[in-house]
Amino acid sequence: MIPPDRLTAQLAFLAEIDKLKAIIRQTPLIDGSRRETDAEHSWHVAMMALMLAEHADEPVDAARVVKMLLVHDVVEIDAGDTFIYDDAGNADKAEREQRAADRLFGLLPADQGAELRALWDEFEARETADSRFAAAIDRFAPILNNHLSGGLSWQANGVQPDKVFIFNEPRIGGASKALWERTRAMVEESVGRGDFVVKGARV
Amino acid sequence: MIPPDRLTAQLAFLAEIDKLKAIIRQTPLIDGSRRETDAEHSWHVAMMALMLAEHADEPVDAARVVKMLLVHDVVEIDAGDTFIYDDAGNADKAEREQRAADRLFGLLPADQGAELRALWDEFEARETADSRFAAAIDRFAPILNNHLSGGLSWQANGVQPDKVFIFNEPRIGGASKALWERTRAMVEESVGRGDFVVKGARV
Repeated sequence: MIPPDRLTAQLAFLAEIDKLKAIIRQTPLIDGSRRETDAEHSWHVAMMALMLAEHADEPVDAARVVKMLLVHDVVEIDAGDTFIYDDAGNADKAEREQRAADRLFGLLPADQGAELRALWDEFEARETADSRFAAAIDRFAPILNNHLSGGLSWQANGVQPDKVFIFNEPRIGGASKALWERTRAMVEESVGRGDFVVKGARV
Repeated sequence: MIPPDRLTAQLAFLAEIDKLKAIIRQTPLIDGSRRETDAEHSWHVAMMALMLAEHADEPVDAARVVKMLLVHDVVEIDAGDTFIYDDAGNADKAEREQRAADRLFGLLPADQGAELRALWDEFEARETADSRFAAAIDRFAPILNNHLSGGLSWQANGVQPDKVFIFNEPRIGGASKALWERTRAMVEESVGRGDFVVKGARV
Protein backbone atom coordinates (compact mmCIF):
# COMPACT_ATOMS: atom_id res chain seq x y z
CA MET A 1 0.00 0.00 0.00
CA ILE A 2 1.37 3.38 -1.05
CA PRO A 3 1.30 5.91 1.84
CA PRO A 4 -1.44 8.56 1.38
CA ASP A 5 1.16 11.33 1.98
CA ARG A 6 2.80 10.33 -1.26
CA LEU A 7 -0.42 10.90 -3.21
CA THR A 8 -0.89 14.21 -1.38
CA ALA A 9 2.56 15.40 -2.54
CA GLN A 10 1.90 14.23 -6.10
CA LEU A 11 -1.42 16.09 -6.18
CA ALA A 12 0.20 19.25 -4.78
CA PHE A 13 2.63 19.18 -7.73
CA LEU A 14 -0.11 18.35 -10.27
CA ALA A 15 -2.26 21.21 -8.96
CA GLU A 16 0.67 23.64 -9.00
CA ILE A 17 1.53 22.90 -12.63
CA ASP A 18 -2.04 23.83 -13.63
CA LYS A 19 -0.50 27.33 -13.74
CA LEU A 20 1.29 26.39 -16.97
CA LYS A 21 -2.11 26.97 -18.63
CA ALA A 22 -1.86 30.65 -17.71
CA ILE A 23 1.56 31.32 -19.26
CA ILE A 24 1.23 32.86 -22.69
CA ARG A 25 3.92 32.30 -25.33
CA GLN A 26 4.72 34.49 -28.34
CA THR A 27 3.65 31.71 -30.74
CA PRO A 28 0.21 32.13 -32.36
CA LEU A 29 -2.36 29.42 -32.89
CA ILE A 30 -2.34 28.54 -36.60
CA ASP A 31 -5.77 30.16 -36.99
CA GLY A 32 -4.26 33.42 -35.71
CA SER A 33 -7.00 33.90 -33.10
CA ARG A 34 -4.63 34.26 -30.12
CA ARG A 35 -1.24 33.20 -28.74
CA GLU A 36 -0.86 29.68 -27.33
CA THR A 37 -0.29 28.83 -23.66
CA ASP A 38 2.71 26.89 -22.36
CA ALA A 39 0.48 23.91 -21.56
CA GLU A 40 -0.89 23.84 -25.13
CA HIS A 41 2.62 24.09 -26.55
CA SER A 42 3.81 21.27 -24.28
CA TRP A 43 1.03 19.03 -25.58
CA HIS A 44 1.70 19.96 -29.22
CA VAL A 45 5.46 19.27 -29.04
CA ALA A 46 4.79 15.93 -27.30
CA MET A 47 2.58 14.94 -30.25
CA MET A 48 5.26 16.17 -32.67
CA ALA A 49 7.91 14.05 -30.95
CA LEU A 50 5.69 10.97 -31.29
CA MET A 51 5.00 11.54 -34.97
CA LEU A 52 8.43 12.84 -36.06
CA ALA A 53 10.89 10.71 -34.05
CA GLU A 54 11.83 8.79 -37.21
CA HIS A 55 13.40 11.99 -38.61
CA ALA A 56 16.01 12.22 -35.82
CA ASP A 57 19.52 11.73 -37.22
CA GLU A 58 20.57 9.67 -34.18
CA PRO A 59 18.22 6.99 -32.79
CA VAL A 60 16.00 8.35 -30.01
CA ASP A 61 13.65 6.85 -27.42
CA ALA A 62 10.42 8.62 -28.38
CA ALA A 63 8.73 7.91 -25.03
CA ARG A 64 11.62 9.62 -23.18
CA VAL A 65 11.55 12.56 -25.58
CA VAL A 66 7.80 12.91 -24.95
CA LYS A 67 8.32 12.87 -21.18
CA MET A 68 11.06 15.49 -21.48
CA LEU A 69 8.86 17.74 -23.59
CA LEU A 70 5.88 17.38 -21.24
CA VAL A 71 8.11 18.63 -18.41
CA HIS A 72 10.45 21.04 -20.22
CA ASP A 73 8.48 24.26 -19.67
CA VAL A 74 7.17 23.65 -16.13
CA VAL A 75 9.89 25.94 -14.74
CA GLU A 76 8.25 28.84 -16.59
CA ILE A 77 5.55 28.85 -13.90
CA ASP A 78 8.05 30.78 -11.78
CA ALA A 79 10.52 32.01 -14.39
CA GLY A 80 8.08 33.10 -17.11
CA ASP A 81 8.36 32.45 -20.85
CA THR A 82 11.44 34.05 -22.43
CA PHE A 83 11.12 34.76 -26.17
CA ILE A 84 14.14 33.22 -27.90
CA TYR A 85 14.88 36.46 -29.77
CA ASP A 86 14.90 38.50 -26.50
CA ASP A 87 18.63 38.90 -25.62
CA ALA A 88 18.09 40.70 -22.29
CA GLY A 89 15.52 38.16 -21.06
CA ASN A 90 17.86 35.32 -21.96
CA ALA A 91 20.78 36.72 -19.91
CA ASP A 92 19.47 35.55 -16.51
CA LYS A 93 17.07 32.87 -17.78
CA ALA A 94 19.19 29.91 -16.61
CA GLU A 95 19.44 31.17 -13.04
CA ARG A 96 15.70 31.96 -12.78
CA GLU A 97 14.85 28.53 -14.16
CA GLN A 98 17.18 26.69 -11.78
CA ARG A 99 15.43 28.27 -8.80
CA ALA A 100 12.05 27.36 -10.30
CA ALA A 101 13.14 23.75 -10.82
CA ASP A 102 14.25 23.52 -7.16
CA ARG A 103 10.87 24.70 -5.93
CA LEU A 104 8.56 22.89 -8.36
CA PHE A 105 10.20 19.46 -8.51
CA GLY A 106 10.68 19.79 -4.74
CA LEU A 107 6.90 19.48 -4.28
CA LEU A 108 7.00 15.83 -5.42
CA PRO A 109 8.01 12.74 -3.41
CA ALA A 110 11.84 12.77 -3.45
CA ASP A 111 12.30 9.92 -5.95
CA GLN A 112 9.89 11.40 -8.50
CA GLY A 113 11.21 14.93 -7.99
CA ALA A 114 14.76 13.70 -8.63
CA GLU A 115 13.64 11.81 -11.75
CA LEU A 116 11.89 14.82 -13.31
CA ARG A 117 14.75 17.11 -12.31
CA ALA A 118 17.27 14.80 -14.00
CA LEU A 119 15.11 14.72 -17.12
CA TRP A 120 14.83 18.51 -17.17
CA ASP A 121 18.59 18.93 -16.56
CA GLU A 122 19.21 16.53 -19.45
CA PHE A 123 16.90 18.59 -21.68
CA GLU A 124 18.72 21.80 -20.76
CA ALA A 125 22.20 20.33 -21.28
CA ARG A 126 21.46 18.87 -24.74
CA GLU A 127 24.25 16.32 -24.45
CA THR A 128 22.18 13.23 -25.33
CA ALA A 129 20.40 12.25 -28.54
CA ASP A 130 17.01 12.35 -26.79
CA SER A 131 17.51 15.86 -25.42
CA ARG A 132 18.94 17.19 -28.69
CA PHE A 133 15.91 15.92 -30.57
CA ALA A 134 13.53 17.30 -27.91
CA ALA A 135 15.20 20.71 -28.19
CA ALA A 136 14.93 20.58 -31.99
CA ILE A 137 11.18 19.90 -31.79
CA ASP A 138 10.80 22.72 -29.26
CA ARG A 139 12.31 25.10 -31.87
CA PHE A 140 10.53 23.56 -34.86
CA ALA A 141 7.02 23.92 -33.39
CA PRO A 142 6.86 27.75 -33.25
CA ILE A 143 8.27 28.01 -36.78
CA LEU A 144 5.54 25.68 -38.07
CA ASN A 145 2.82 27.72 -36.36
CA ASN A 146 4.29 31.04 -37.46
CA HIS A 147 4.68 29.89 -41.04
CA LEU A 148 1.11 28.57 -41.21
CA SER A 149 -0.38 31.64 -39.51
CA GLY A 150 1.30 34.05 -41.94
CA GLY A 151 4.19 34.95 -39.62
CA LEU A 152 2.18 36.58 -36.83
CA SER A 153 4.75 36.51 -34.03
CA TRP A 154 7.63 37.32 -36.40
CA GLN A 155 5.75 40.45 -37.50
CA ALA A 156 4.62 41.40 -34.00
CA ASN A 157 8.20 41.24 -32.73
CA GLY A 158 10.02 42.51 -35.82
CA VAL A 159 11.97 39.25 -36.21
CA GLN A 160 13.86 38.97 -39.50
CA PRO A 161 14.51 35.73 -41.43
CA ASP A 162 18.31 35.84 -40.92
CA LYS A 163 17.70 35.75 -37.16
CA VAL A 164 15.37 32.74 -37.55
CA PHE A 165 18.07 30.92 -39.54
CA ILE A 166 20.97 31.84 -37.21
CA PHE A 167 19.11 30.96 -34.00
CA ASN A 168 17.55 27.72 -35.17
CA GLU A 169 19.86 26.00 -37.65
CA PRO A 170 22.30 24.64 -34.99
CA ARG A 171 19.54 23.27 -32.77
CA ILE A 172 17.14 21.92 -35.41
CA GLY A 173 19.71 20.98 -38.07
CA GLY A 174 22.01 19.50 -35.43
CA ALA A 175 19.38 16.88 -34.54
CA SER A 176 17.50 16.34 -37.79
CA LYS A 177 18.65 17.28 -41.28
CA ALA A 178 15.17 16.50 -42.64
CA LEU A 179 13.44 18.86 -40.20
CA TRP A 180 15.97 21.60 -40.89
CA GLU A 181 15.53 21.24 -44.65
CA ARG A 182 11.76 21.58 -44.17
CA THR A 183 12.21 24.51 -41.76
CA ARG A 184 14.35 26.36 -44.29
CA ALA A 185 11.77 25.75 -47.02
CA MET A 186 8.92 27.05 -44.80
CA VAL A 187 10.84 30.20 -43.82
CA GLU A 188 11.81 30.86 -47.44
CA GLU A 189 8.20 30.49 -48.50
CA SER A 190 7.22 32.91 -45.73
CA VAL A 191 9.85 35.39 -46.96
CA GLY A 192 8.53 35.07 -50.51
CA ARG A 193 4.98 35.93 -49.56
CA GLY A 194 5.93 38.82 -47.26
CA ASP A 195 5.29 37.23 -43.84
CA PHE A 196 8.28 39.10 -42.39
CA VAL A 197 7.07 42.52 -43.53
CA VAL A 198 5.89 44.33 -40.42
CA LYS A 199 2.23 45.24 -40.90
CA GLY A 200 1.62 46.57 -37.41
CA ALA A 201 -0.45 43.48 -36.69
CA ARG A 202 -0.24 42.16 -33.16
CA VAL A 203 -1.57 38.76 -32.10
CA MET B 1 16.10 8.26 -46.46
CA ILE B 2 12.48 8.88 -45.45
CA PRO B 3 10.39 10.14 -48.42
CA PRO B 4 9.53 13.88 -48.10
CA ASP B 5 5.82 13.05 -48.71
CA ARG B 6 5.78 11.23 -45.40
CA LEU B 7 6.93 14.33 -43.53
CA THR B 8 4.36 16.38 -45.44
CA ALA B 9 1.54 14.08 -44.27
CA GLN B 10 2.83 14.14 -40.68
CA LEU B 11 2.95 17.95 -40.70
CA ALA B 12 -0.58 18.13 -42.16
CA PHE B 13 -1.81 16.10 -39.17
CA LEU B 14 0.27 18.09 -36.65
CA ALA B 15 -1.04 21.37 -38.09
CA GLU B 16 -4.64 20.10 -38.06
CA ILE B 17 -4.51 19.08 -34.41
CA ASP B 18 -3.48 22.65 -33.49
CA LYS B 19 -7.28 23.13 -33.44
CA LEU B 20 -7.45 21.21 -30.16
CA LYS B 21 -6.20 24.46 -28.58
CA ALA B 22 -9.48 26.12 -29.59
CA ILE B 23 -11.84 23.57 -28.01
CA ILE B 24 -13.05 24.74 -24.63
CA ARG B 25 -13.99 22.24 -21.95
CA GLN B 26 -16.31 22.74 -18.97
CA THR B 27 -13.42 22.30 -16.52
CA PRO B 28 -12.04 25.50 -14.99
CA LEU B 29 -8.40 26.34 -14.39
CA ILE B 30 -7.72 25.98 -10.67
CA ASP B 31 -7.34 29.77 -10.38
CA GLY B 32 -10.89 30.10 -11.74
CA SER B 33 -9.85 32.62 -14.41
CA ARG B 34 -11.34 30.69 -17.34
CA ARG B 35 -12.16 27.20 -18.63
CA GLU B 36 -9.32 25.03 -19.94
CA THR B 37 -8.82 23.99 -23.57
CA ASP B 38 -8.68 20.39 -24.76
CA ALA B 39 -4.97 20.75 -25.52
CA GLU B 40 -4.27 21.98 -21.99
CA HIS B 41 -6.31 19.16 -20.50
CA SER B 42 -4.46 16.62 -22.68
CA TRP B 43 -1.12 17.88 -21.37
CA HIS B 44 -2.33 17.89 -17.76
CA VAL B 45 -3.67 14.31 -17.85
CA ALA B 46 -0.45 13.10 -19.50
CA MET B 47 1.49 14.59 -16.56
CA MET B 48 -0.97 12.98 -14.13
CA ALA B 49 -0.49 9.57 -15.76
CA LEU B 50 3.29 9.89 -15.37
CA MET B 51 3.10 10.88 -11.70
CA LEU B 52 0.20 8.64 -10.61
CA ALA B 53 0.78 5.38 -12.52
CA GLU B 54 1.89 3.67 -9.30
CA HIS B 55 -1.68 4.02 -7.97
CA ALA B 56 -3.17 1.82 -10.71
CA ASP B 57 -4.58 -1.41 -9.25
CA GLU B 58 -3.32 -3.43 -12.22
CA PRO B 59 0.22 -2.86 -13.57
CA VAL B 60 0.23 -0.32 -16.42
CA ASP B 61 2.76 0.85 -19.00
CA ALA B 62 2.91 4.55 -18.13
CA ALA B 63 4.44 5.54 -21.49
CA ARG B 64 1.51 3.89 -23.35
CA VAL B 65 -1.01 5.54 -21.02
CA VAL B 66 0.63 8.92 -21.72
CA LYS B 67 0.46 8.34 -25.48
CA MET B 68 -3.20 7.34 -25.21
CA LEU B 69 -4.03 10.46 -23.20
CA LEU B 70 -2.14 12.76 -25.59
CA VAL B 71 -4.31 11.41 -28.42
CA HIS B 72 -7.61 10.70 -26.64
CA ASP B 73 -9.36 14.02 -27.31
CA VAL B 74 -8.11 14.73 -30.83
CA VAL B 75 -11.46 13.54 -32.24
CA GLU B 76 -13.13 16.49 -30.50
CA ILE B 77 -11.69 18.73 -33.24
CA ASP B 78 -14.61 17.52 -35.38
CA ALA B 79 -16.97 16.11 -32.76
CA GLY B 80 -16.69 18.84 -30.10
CA ASP B 81 -16.33 18.36 -26.36
CA THR B 82 -19.33 16.60 -24.77
CA PHE B 83 -19.83 17.35 -21.06
CA ILE B 84 -20.11 14.02 -19.22
CA TYR B 85 -23.29 15.12 -17.44
CA ASP B 86 -24.99 16.05 -20.78
CA ASP B 87 -27.23 13.04 -21.60
CA ALA B 88 -28.47 14.32 -24.98
CA GLY B 89 -24.95 15.16 -26.18
CA ASN B 90 -23.73 11.73 -25.17
CA ALA B 91 -26.39 9.89 -27.21
CA ASP B 92 -24.67 10.33 -30.61
CA LYS B 93 -21.16 11.02 -29.28
CA ALA B 94 -19.68 7.67 -30.33
CA GLU B 95 -20.83 7.99 -33.94
CA ARG B 96 -19.57 11.59 -34.26
CA GLU B 97 -16.23 10.60 -32.81
CA GLN B 98 -15.80 7.59 -35.11
CA ARG B 99 -16.21 9.84 -38.18
CA ALA B 100 -13.73 12.29 -36.69
CA ALA B 101 -11.19 9.52 -36.06
CA ASP B 102 -11.51 8.35 -39.70
CA ARG B 103 -10.76 11.82 -41.02
CA LEU B 104 -8.06 12.94 -38.57
CA PHE B 105 -5.96 9.77 -38.30
CA GLY B 106 -6.43 9.43 -42.08
CA LEU B 107 -4.23 12.49 -42.58
CA LEU B 108 -1.16 10.57 -41.34
CA PRO B 109 0.99 8.05 -43.24
CA ALA B 110 -1.00 4.79 -43.15
CA ASP B 111 1.18 2.99 -40.56
CA GLN B 112 1.11 5.88 -38.09
CA GLY B 113 -2.59 6.56 -38.67
CA ALA B 114 -3.37 2.91 -37.95
CA GLU B 115 -1.22 2.98 -34.80
CA LEU B 116 -2.93 6.06 -33.34
CA ARG B 117 -6.35 4.77 -34.36
CA ALA B 118 -5.70 1.47 -32.57
CA LEU B 119 -4.57 3.37 -29.49
CA TRP B 120 -7.68 5.55 -29.55
CA ASP B 121 -9.94 2.53 -30.11
CA GLU B 122 -8.26 0.86 -27.14
CA PHE B 123 -8.87 3.95 -25.00
CA GLU B 124 -12.54 4.01 -25.99
CA ALA B 125 -13.09 0.29 -25.38
CA ARG B 126 -11.50 0.29 -21.89
CA GLU B 127 -10.75 -3.44 -22.07
CA THR B 128 -7.06 -3.24 -21.13
CA ALA B 129 -5.36 -2.13 -17.92
CA ASP B 130 -3.65 0.79 -19.73
CA SER B 131 -6.91 2.13 -21.18
CA ARG B 132 -8.84 1.68 -17.94
CA PHE B 133 -6.22 3.67 -16.06
CA ALA B 134 -6.12 6.35 -18.81
CA ALA B 135 -9.91 6.68 -18.59
CA ALA B 136 -9.72 6.95 -14.79
CA ILE B 137 -7.19 9.80 -15.03
CA ASP B 138 -9.40 11.50 -17.64
CA ARG B 139 -12.24 11.51 -15.08
CA PHE B 140 -10.06 12.32 -12.07
CA ALA B 141 -8.53 15.49 -13.61
CA PRO B 142 -11.73 17.59 -13.85
CA ILE B 143 -12.73 16.61 -10.30
CA LEU B 144 -9.35 17.79 -8.99
CA ASN B 145 -9.67 21.12 -10.81
CA ASN B 146 -13.29 21.59 -9.77
CA HIS B 147 -12.55 20.77 -6.17
CA LEU B 148 -9.58 23.16 -6.01
CA SER B 149 -11.43 25.97 -7.82
CA GLY B 150 -14.40 25.82 -5.43
CA GLY B 151 -16.63 23.77 -7.73
CA LEU B 152 -16.94 26.25 -10.60
CA SER B 153 -18.17 23.93 -13.37
CA TRP B 154 -20.38 21.94 -10.96
CA GLN B 155 -22.10 25.20 -9.99
CA ALA B 156 -22.28 26.56 -13.53
CA ASN B 157 -23.97 23.37 -14.73
CA GLY B 158 -26.04 22.55 -11.63
CA VAL B 159 -24.26 19.21 -11.14
CA GLN B 160 -25.05 17.55 -7.80
CA PRO B 161 -22.63 15.37 -5.78
CA ASP B 162 -24.67 12.16 -6.24
CA LYS B 163 -24.21 12.52 -10.01
CA VAL B 164 -20.46 12.99 -9.56
CA PHE B 165 -20.32 9.80 -7.48
CA ILE B 166 -22.55 7.72 -9.79
CA PHE B 167 -20.80 8.78 -13.01
CA ASN B 168 -17.25 8.47 -11.77
CA GLU B 169 -17.00 5.68 -9.22
CA PRO B 170 -17.04 2.82 -11.79
CA ARG B 171 -14.42 4.41 -14.01
CA ILE B 172 -12.06 5.83 -11.37
CA GLY B 173 -12.62 3.21 -8.65
CA GLY B 174 -12.49 0.41 -11.22
CA ALA B 175 -8.88 1.30 -12.07
CA SER B 176 -7.51 2.72 -8.82
CA LYS B 177 -8.96 2.32 -5.36
CA ALA B 178 -6.51 4.93 -4.02
CA LEU B 179 -7.60 7.56 -6.56
CA TRP B 180 -11.26 6.83 -5.92
CA GLU B 181 -10.80 7.13 -2.15
CA ARG B 182 -9.14 10.52 -2.68
CA THR B 183 -11.83 11.57 -5.16
CA ARG B 184 -14.56 10.77 -2.67
CA ALA B 185 -12.74 12.74 0.06
CA MET B 186 -12.36 15.77 -2.24
CA VAL B 187 -16.03 15.74 -3.28
CA GLU B 188 -17.15 15.34 0.32
CA GLU B 189 -14.98 18.28 1.35
CA SER B 190 -16.53 20.28 -1.51
CA VAL B 191 -20.01 19.34 -0.31
CA GLY B 192 -19.12 20.42 3.22
CA ARG B 193 -18.01 23.89 2.20
CA GLY B 194 -20.94 24.48 -0.17
CA ASP B 195 -19.21 24.12 -3.55
CA PHE B 196 -22.33 22.49 -5.00
CA VAL B 197 -24.63 25.31 -3.98
CA VAL B 198 -25.53 27.20 -7.16
CA LYS B 199 -24.44 30.83 -6.74
CA GLY B 200 -25.22 31.95 -10.27
CA ALA B 201 -21.48 32.10 -10.96
CA ARG B 202 -20.41 31.10 -14.43
CA VAL B 203 -16.82 30.46 -15.43
